[in-house]
This record gives sequence, C-alpha cells and structure tokens, in this order.
Amino acid sequence: MTRQNTPAPLTEIWRGSLLESQHHGHAVVCNGKGEIVHSWGNPDQVIYPRSSCKMVQALPLLTSGAAARYGLNSEQLALACASHNGARIHVDRVSRWLDQLELSEGDLRCGAQMPRDKEVMHGLIKTDDSPCQIHNNCSGKHAGFLTLAQHLGAGPEYVEIDHPVQQACHEAFEEVTGETSPTYGIDGCSAPNFACTVTGLARGMGWFASAHTRSTRSDEAAVQLRAAMAQHPELVAGEGRACTALMRDMGGKVSVKTGAEGVFVAILPEQELGIALKVSDGATRAAENAIAALLVSLGVLDKDSPSAKAYMSAAITNWNGIHCGEMRPAAELQF
Amino acid sequence: MTRQNTPAPLTEIWRGSLLESQHHGHAVVCNGKGEIVHSWGNPDQVIYPRSSCKMVQALPLLTSGAAARYGLNSEQLALACASHNGARIHVDRVSRWLDQLELSEGDLRCGAQMPRDKEVMHGLIKTDDSPCQIHNNCSGKHAGFLTLAQHLGAGPEYVEIDHPVQQACHEAFEEVTGETSPTYGIDGCSAPNFACTVTGLARGMGWFASAHTRSTRSDEAAVQLRAAMAQHPELVAGEGRACTALMRDMGGKVSVKTGAEGVFVAILPEQELGIALKVSDGATRAAENAIAALLVSLGVLDKDSPSAKAYMSAAITNWNGIHCGEMRPAAELQF
Repeated sequence: MTRQNTPAPLTEIWRGSLLESQHHGHAVVCNGKGEIVHSWGNPDQVIYPRSSCKMVQALPLLTSGAAARYGLNSEQLALACASHNGARIHVDRVSRWLDQLELSEGDLRCGAQMPRDKEVMHGLIKTDDSPCQIHNNCSGKHAGFLTLAQHLGAGPEYVEIDHPVQQACHEAFEEVTGETSPTYGIDGCSAPNFACTVTGLARGMGWFASAHTRSTRSDEAAVQLRAAMAQHPELVAGEGRACTALMRDMGGKVSVKTGAEGVFVAILPEQELGIALKVSDGATRAAENAIAALLVSLGVLDKDSPSAKAYMSAAITNWNGIHCGEMRPAAELQF
Repeated sequence: MTRQNTPAPLTEIWRGSLLESQHHGHAVVCNGKGEIVHSWGNPDQVIYPRSSCKMVQALPLLTSGAAARYGLNSEQLALACASHNGARIHVDRVSRWLDQLELSEGDLRCGAQMPRDKEVMHGLIKTDDSPCQIHNNCSGKHAGFLTLAQHLGAGPEYVEIDHPVQQACHEAFEEVTGETSPTYGIDGCSAPNFACTVTGLARGMGWFASAHTRSTRSDEAAVQLRAAMAQHPELVAGEGRACTALMRDMGGKVSVKTGAEGVFVAILPEQELGIALKVSDGATRAAENAIAALLVSLGVLDKDSPSAKAYMSAAITNWNGIHCGEMRPAAELQF
C-alpha cells in the first residue's frame, strides 16, 4: 500500500481570501447493527485508532470482573478511557488507584511524559523536577491494565503482545469492530494498538451506542464505560481540550474521544449511532473540526455552543489578537 | 477555489507495517532564469509563503541604503531573515539593535510570544514573567522593518499595508517572484504576507541563487542576505530546528528557510537553483522531511548527515524510547 484511497475534504484553513491549507480524510457513521449510515472518503481505509479506542481497551477490565472486585468507581472508569492533561485531578486519582492496588509509579509501563496541564507543568519546571509515568496522558488506561493483570494473576509486563491483558484487549477489539485486525503498531505509551478499518471503528462505536438495547456482560460494560466518560468529561481530557469541551456542551448525552494522528470517535446512545474519523495527514486540528461538524449535523451539538465555536468555526488570531482567518469544515460534512 | 489541484505525495508516516498518515503538496525547483527544472503537484498553486520569504522582505532594507547607513552586520541581516527561537543569542542581539535605533520593545508590532528556547522559556516561567515582543520569532524581521522605516522617515505603524516599508516589500516580492500578487493575508506577526504561486516562490529563490551572476543593487543585496543566513545558521532559527541543522550540515553553501503552514524554501548558489514547497495540509514535519529529501536528491545534503537522519528518515519513538515507526519521503522526491 503506498497511497490512501480517495480521502474526502474535511477541513479548510482560510487566511484572508485564500484557502491556505486543507485537510482530507475518511469518516463513517454506523448504526447499532453496524450498518453504514453516512460515509466520506474511503470507509475501508485501514487505520490505527490510537487512543480513540481506549473504551474498547477498558472492556476486559469490566467483563473480567476486575472492576467489580476492586470496586472501581465511575471516575476510575473515565480515567481508564482518558488521554488526560496530567492535571492534579488526574494525577491525584491515578496515584490513589495505584495505592489501592498496592503498586507504585514504577509498575507503570507508559513512560514519563511532561504533562500538558500548565499548573503542573510549570510546577515541575519551577522546581527543576522531571515528570513521571503518572503524568503520562495514558496513566489511567495503564492503571486499568494493572488492575486487570492483578485480577488475572498475570505478570508485570502487561504491554507485551502475548500478555493476558493485551490478549483480552485484542479479543474485545475484534468483537466490537467485527473485523479480524490485520496488524498492530506500538503506541506512544508502549501498548499494542490494533488496526481496523474506519468502518470497523465506527461499528465499534455504534455497538457502544446501542449497548443499552442488549444485555450481555460486554453490553453492560459498554454502557458503564460510555456513561463514565460522559459523566466526567474533565477526567477524559482536561481544561482546554476538545473531548472535555464537546462532552460538556452535549450535557452528558454523548461520549467522544480523540486519538493521535487525527482520529476522533463519538458514541451517540439516543440515536444509537457511532462515528469514527481519520484525518489522512494526522492533524489533530482537523479531527477536532470534523467531529464537531458531524456532531452539529447529527443534531447533538448546538452550533452556537462554546465548543462548536472553538472547534468547528474557529477564528485564527495572531500574537496581537488580530483576526487573520478561520478554520471551517468542508461543506460535505454539513448535512 | 474550494480544492487544491492534485497535490503530490510528499511524506509518509509509518507505524509498524502500516502507512498511518500521509502528506501531499506542491514543490518546484527553478533555475536562475526562472525556468522550472523539476516539479511535483501543482506548480500554479497559489500559496502564502509566510516566513519563508523573509529574505525577500529584507531586500528593501539593503537596496534602500538603510543597512549601509546603520552599518548593519551579517548577524543583523541573518536575524532580519530569521524565525528564531527567542534564545539569548537572538534576544540579546535584537535588543542591542533596538538600542542602536534609539527605539524600545514597545516600538515593535509583532506581538509578544513565548519563546521556543527552553532555557529562556523556563527562566520566564520560574520568575512568573511574561514574554515580550523581542521574544517573538519575527523580532529580527521587525527590527529590520523599523530600521527601514527610520531611514525613510516613515511613521511608526510599519505593518500597515500602505506604509512605505510594506509597499517596498510588496514591490520587491513581485520583482523576485515575477508575478503580480493576487492577494495578501495578515501573518502571525501582523505584517502583510503576499500570495504567489509555488513557482513564483521557487523563481524568487532561483533569483537569489543566481544573484552573483548579475550586478544590480538588488542582486548585491540578495548575495549579502543569502550569505548572512548561511554564515549564521544558529541565528536564522536555533538549536533543535531544521533550518539551523540543515544549513550547518551543508557547510554554508545553501540557505534554507521554513514558513508556517508547511512551507520550505532553499537557495543553492553553486547550482543556481531555488526550491519552494508547500504541504497542502500545512504540516511542518512534512515540509522539513520533503526539503531534506530534495536537498539530498540535488546532491547538496549528505544522506548520512545528522540533519538528513533527523528530518528525512526520522525514527518515530515513544515515551519509553521504543522505535514505533518512521517518517519517510515519498519515492517521487528521491531522484
């Protein structure tokens, strides 16, 4: 494979009267039966969901009985699905979670990352401290992995591809996407990230969105996870982040999640719809713009809400605060 | 205009065995006569050069006689063409330049910007200080604008479109690109940025590259500016930046410059060639990758040099330092 198959226009960057840059990609909306309701670009494009599938990776934590055994609350479930800012609200809760497991920061395998949260980052800089693994945006997911590993009595190297934790994630991933994953990559946090088509990812989100209409253990887990995300938008990302802002503005009715390299997904339980999109060039700004446009088009996000204004019709200003241009969704995304 | 005309593949992002993301765009190589020698994508695509045309914006500073009158040295000329990190080597020199003009930071119109240089940025954070306009990556260009404004006896609002400084920049821009600019946008630093085709920008760089074969005042200015950039690569950008690393590895023989939204240019005096490229989606990583590939293909950058390894065949590693994938130029750029 050497070239993406006909990606569709997603996002336009205007400066003055000129279209300065443009993003293309693939987007699919699936219903609860896994049928495509809308699509743009190539629905069969194989992608890595990256962090957008954290709610899928969290399923075995619940279906195994680990979450119940350790009495995990909705905040912990939201953190298991999070790419967080490393703010105090995140770091403190993950620290307590590790305490609960009688484990420590050194048991994580996600690597140390400078947190995005300004207060915590500036605090580290002011004291010449280095960030630790708890600051890593994936530390909640990894606390979930450690909980499952402990529940299963499995070894400490929980990010290895043949570890029971990752085998369980693999199985859950193929179940909800309805596909055999053709390959996997190593993610930023060292966990395997299984590939699927954009349709497979949208099908998985449609499965989450319709889980309340079914009653298996997996379905109950899906309802718990999507509700935890929507209930704690600040834990899933943090201040100034698209996931948090969009979920707040949709009043707990929709769960959304970003992934690296331009992926975004959404779970719409009332409509029993799932969305997945991938920006071909990997740009986060376009993924945020396109998901906001699709949420507005599907009637779950008010076009005058703060997050729609921030991400869908975003003003581009310069160092003096002068309005230089704007980011707009392609006309095709507005239906 | 609603869509870029057939951009060509420029850069591939691989993770494991999967092409995760891909960048497309337009690139042109012109000779000293302004003829196209090579092209990829649409040579007629209209773009904003953004900061890649700072050496063009600096021409009137020399042709007007201002640089000679104020005795500007090669460091100042390099800074006039720079998008710098706001490191001490940059900030100190721009401060002294303003002193020389008997002006102060408040006379700049570029806006305050947190510097990219880690030492200076951490210093500001540690003392709870805010950055000032001298930290702005464009402060050298603006010191040049102020010098020209003073020389011309023009008013203080030197970024306004009808100010003599911007009129002179406009004239120089159309002269070297060989085009009538169809429009302009307001840049990050509030100065007008004139649009041209990718070919126009490459023609301008070819004009710079062949200036030593001609002898007008503009040609002499071009030779001085391109030499100042190549002689002081650390002043044009800074540590950890592609412009600086590439110019260092080419031993002062080639001048290169990046611009926001995925633009990169190069001036090759020995070959009398100019390069301009624009990544359609605006990604800097792809512009850096593509220019490195073209410089290797044109025989002026060693493929085993540190900058070629960093930008052309760049390993993608994660928070644990694990190799997850790599960035590669499209096969079409390697000839």
